[in-house]
Amino acid sequence: MEITTALYLIPVGISDAPLSDTLPAATVGIVRNIRHYIVENVRTARRFLKKCDRDIDIDALTFCELNRHTEPRDVSAFLEPLRRGEPVGLMSEAGCPAVADPGAIVVGIVQHEGLRVIPLVGPSSILMSLMASGFNGQGFAFHGYLPIETTARAKAIRELEAESARKNMTQIFIEAPYRNNKMLATLINTLRGDTMLCVACDLTDPVQESVISLPASRWRGIKADYDKRPAIFLIYSGSTVIL
Amino acid sequence: MEITTALYLIPVGISDAPLSDTLPAATVGIVRNIRHYIVENVRTARRFLKKCDRDIDIDALTFCELNRHTEPRDVSAFLEPLRRGEPVGLMSEAGCPAVADPGAIVVGIVQHEGLRVIPLVGPSSILMSLMASGFNGQGFAFHGYLPIETTARAKAIRELEAESARKNMTQIFIEAPYRNNKMLATLINTLRGDTMLCVACDLTDPVQESVISLPASRWRGIKADYDKRPAIFLIYSGSTVIL
Repeated sequence: MEITTALYLIPVGISDAPLSDTLPAATVGIVRNIRHYIVENVRTARRFLKKCDRDIDIDALTFCELNRHTEPRDVSAFLEPLRRGEPVGLMSEAGCPAVADPGAIVVGIVQHEGLRVIPLVGPSSILMSLMASGFNGQGFAFHGYLPIETTARAKAIRELEAESARKNMTQIFIEAPYRNNKMLATLINTLRGDTMLCVACDLTDPVQESVISLPASRWRGIKADYDKRPAIFLIYSGSTVIL
Repeated sequence: MEITTALYLIPVGISDAPLSDTLPAATVGIVRNIRHYIVENVRTARRFLKKCDRDIDIDALTFCELNRHTEPRDVSAFLEPLRRGEPVGLMSEAGCPAVADPGAIVVGIVQHEGLRVIPLVGPSSILMSLMASGFNGQGFAFHGYLPIETTARAKAIRELEAESARKNMTQIFIEAPYRNNKMLATLINTLRGDTMLCVACDLTDPVQESVISLPASRWRGIKADYDKRPAIFLIYSGSTVIL
């Protein structure tokens, strides 16, 4: 893949799997030719680049950090290298940039200015969990985080369950890893027994990966500990998938 | 990546790009070790496998076709090799299996029987268009095809536009490639002028790829021909993305 003047959306790993398991070889070639990066977390970005190429000269690169501590008015300046003709890389802390992270604000500016955006292939827990769930992949929605407060959370879960049935859509959401077990308990206690629940955990990890889809009522009997592990939740109460 | 007894969800290319642009190297190793495939289209599956490995002995492989012509009661038998301990590969005609295709029915059976499912990384026009659109990636929904009939289609578009504003979610859908230009005209005439519309076309193609995000009113002045090209549509009328 030849490099050009564009904002490259560079996915990074979501587990400790070797890069060759989850990233196309071309991504490493792209990374070798980019000097300017906009990243969610500088430390993890450096580690990723070193994994791509041990001989990379990290000190020759520039990093702008884009996360909840960034002032929105500062973001546009991150794109100066692109405006003068140099490629810029956008990286999330894990997975695909501009999905379930703040990266879309940068992409929006680039689109607004008519500059080029090139999305690269990489691991996405949203997409991979959907694939492996067995739930409807012809209609689905991702909601990010649900409310934390108990009553609001139960209400949100019931609304997603009802919408899944009404629209025949898989409903996907995430949780802070240290609250995964609590989320699972709430789901078991809130969902109808026949609503399908999938928990996908440690995706792409060669040893730890687990994707379990069961009716909510059957989850009661499962010994599963998702504490502090990267997990994603899917519920489905639609009709059986038709060919 | 070591191969094990599982249903492997194997993404295939969505353009004529070299495999090294869009698939991890490990996928080729996996493919070399699978003898049984469930595929949406046998002809394109054989072509993909030959592209992975020119020396592959296609005649030594078994293919079961899973598409709208398949009888649902026949599907379970496709998994016999997996039940006796051999890996099975599931492939769509393009992109990621079990997303926007009938593959979920097979995954559902495997999950029901407590067998293992391993999703692999690959190109998805849904995810890549979302990344490159600059629209909200913290909440989004995919709807497959919209109704074809004129009045129902306009109503569906207006409902997605209203839902995007109400829930601050990006709304994603597809169209049969020969109707892309008609869909674009309908969107321009139906959406509010300030609703954002993105068309992503020929994703991963090194030359033809195009991802354009503009307010609906500005699409009138754009000369774009998406006829018979693989495209995907996204609309967004939510508030600006917050960090």
